[in-house]
Amino acid sequence: MLKVIEYEPGVLRILDQRLLPGVENYITCRTVEEVRDAIKELAVRGAPLIGIAAAYGVCVGLHQYRTKKKLDYIIDTLKGARPTAYNIFLILDRIKGRLKDIDDFRELISLSEKESTRIHEEDRLLCEKIAENGQAIVPHGAKVITYCNTGMLATGGIGTALGVIYKSFWSGKLRCVYACETRPLLQGARLTTYELSKNNVPVTLISDNMLSYLFSKEKIDLAIVGADRIVRNGDVANKIGTYNLAVVCNYFGVPFYVAAPYTTIDLELERGEDIPIEERDEGELKFIYGRQIAPSSVKVWNPAFDVTPSKLITAIITDRGVFKPNEIRNFYVE
Amino acid sequence: MLKVIEYEPGVLRILDQRLLPGVENYITCRTVEEVRDAIKELAVRGAPLIGIAAAYGVCVGLHQYRTKKKLDYIIDTLKGARPTAYNIFLILDRIKGRLKDIDDFRELISLSEKESTRIHEEDRLLCEKIAENGQAIVPHGAKVITYCNTGMLATGGIGTALGVIYKSFWSGKLRCVYACETRPLLQGARLTTYELSKNNVPVTLISDNMLSYLFSKEKIDLAIVGADRIVRNGDVANKIGTYNLAVVCNYFGVPFYVAAPYTTIDLELERGEDIPIEERDEGELKFIYGRQIAPSSVKVWNPAFDVTPSKLITAIITDRGVFKPNEIRNFYVE
Repeated sequence: MLKVIEYEPGVLRILDQRLLPGVENYITCRTVEEVRDAIKELAVRGAPLIGIAAAYGVCVGLHQYRTKKKLDYIIDTLKGARPTAYNIFLILDRIKGRLKDIDDFRELISLSEKESTRIHEEDRLLCEKIAENGQAIVPHGAKVITYCNTGMLATGGIGTALGVIYKSFWSGKLRCVYACETRPLLQGARLTTYELSKNNVPVTLISDNMLSYLFSKEKIDLAIVGADRIVRNGDVANKIGTYNLAVVCNYFGVPFYVAAPYTTIDLELERGEDIPIEERDEGELKFIYGRQIAPSSVKVWNPAFDVTPSKLITAIITDRGVFKPNEIRNFYVE
Repeated sequence: MLKVIEYEPGVLRILDQRLLPGVENYITCRTVEEVRDAIKELAVRGAPLIGIAAAYGVCVGLHQYRTKKKLDYIIDTLKGARPTAYNIFLILDRIKGRLKDIDDFRELISLSEKESTRIHEEDRLLCEKIAENGQAIVPHGAKVITYCNTGMLATGGIGTALGVIYKSFWSGKLRCVYACETRPLLQGARLTTYELSKNNVPVTLISDNMLSYLFSKEKIDLAIVGADRIVRNGDVANKIGTYNLAVVCNYFGVPFYVAAPYTTIDLELERGEDIPIEERDEGELKFIYGRQIAPSSVKVWNPAFDVTPSKLITAIITDRGVFKPNEIRNFYVE
């Protein structure tokens, strides 16, 4: 697979995922503002991966401004990139905490780089653990459906939901995967079918509106998706369309799983309604690759995420084990 | 509104709906094969409108071949265009029946033209009646959701589901419409928002995967869609994604209505599973306006329609009244 993100002192190179699968181009960020924009404009995406990008973004910012006085500005700039996924906030707060007592600037830089690399490596291991815990719930010969992209292009490792899928495939349990294209930005079509087929996992692409017809024609064993934020009552914010998939699974009696690392779990918020949901530009729905598909005057609603209520979720697969949604509020108090 | 279809002796002019809303271009068909291709390739679409196009296609074919011996070939050519919508088959059989005893060629041409014009005009009136019957079920201040395109671009009149929406708007009952974009061919975005906004109906565009999130945030009063074929047990074939909408309506307790003329009702078939469902080229999902969005090697499933089971349908609004799905088998025996 491609290198999705690469740091060297003061410079962050990011694979521009907006151009995939057609073009493999890297963006070079030498300022924290460039890192923020790369996140904001979705050159880099996926809740765990934007957490990693933001961690390196702190290092880029410190190299750029060369003073600790700018640390708060750097952190706040990165926090302003996108509001919904939790990982970026957790990770930035952790780095801020680690750096707060360091006054020597060289030490500050060195510690921020060590911490960012550790976060990147930790995420790789979190993916392994999620995959290990998750593959236990995948039956032999499983047909699985997934949504958006949650794999090597969304994390520091093999992925969350896609990590479970890879692991199940490698252990010979997986029969096939259905990937929903994920409108409007087509992460399922552009990224998930791309990385699954690069790794020889049998995948069939459908559009998001085909779910019910597919489920009526074929026995799907389970759905598995990632998450952008999980709150105390077990509600899950994830890519727009996840809620639809959960409702359809519920109607057809198909188990619906969420896979995410602990870094996605926000125990400060009680309910899904409390999660800030990003609404993106109407151009994402009115235009496709520069071609206008709806009149300029038409109103558009374009939330980038939705919130699936815990009652529709069979279980949440984490690096620490598999939990019922109502167990989320307890498991992490340790 | 634009003229969507126009016949003069031997020539059928068709608005090329594939280019809307950007370009208003007409295709001129002087052969029955050209008419078939215009239907097959979706230059003209919508179950009632392709019935009308096929009726005129018979006239074009008779002008082209100038012998009654070719009538069966002409009819069969048109029947081969698309398999799912019922109207085209009903209408072609009716025309065939009318023409079968006519031997004089001039009379044959003249009768086929009279009959086609009558079918076109009848469809306009069917739309009026559906709209009249349907607006009775729309509450005051209604927020309505619809799917695909079922209006002036899909029929010989104001439409089926959109006809009900227009009538409700004109009578001051309608608050607003949500239009689903309808992947992969975007008839909702390209055609429905286009004709609704040309007629000043307040419309908001969403992608098909936003349904559940929308319904969780806002009280939608009802969903109303068209149909390509309705069978005896009340199952309904319609544009892919309709079934998803019905499942989501069921989960949120939102009434789900189908609006269609009697020409869509096929009393020969008992159940939805008996309806032939067209599967279209994988290119419709792998490419968008020439841009490749998924790797060439990836498998694609691309059914153009799905079948919504009668149990998810609140009622079927026809030109003859509003019926429960289980009444369909009886109402039309007269």
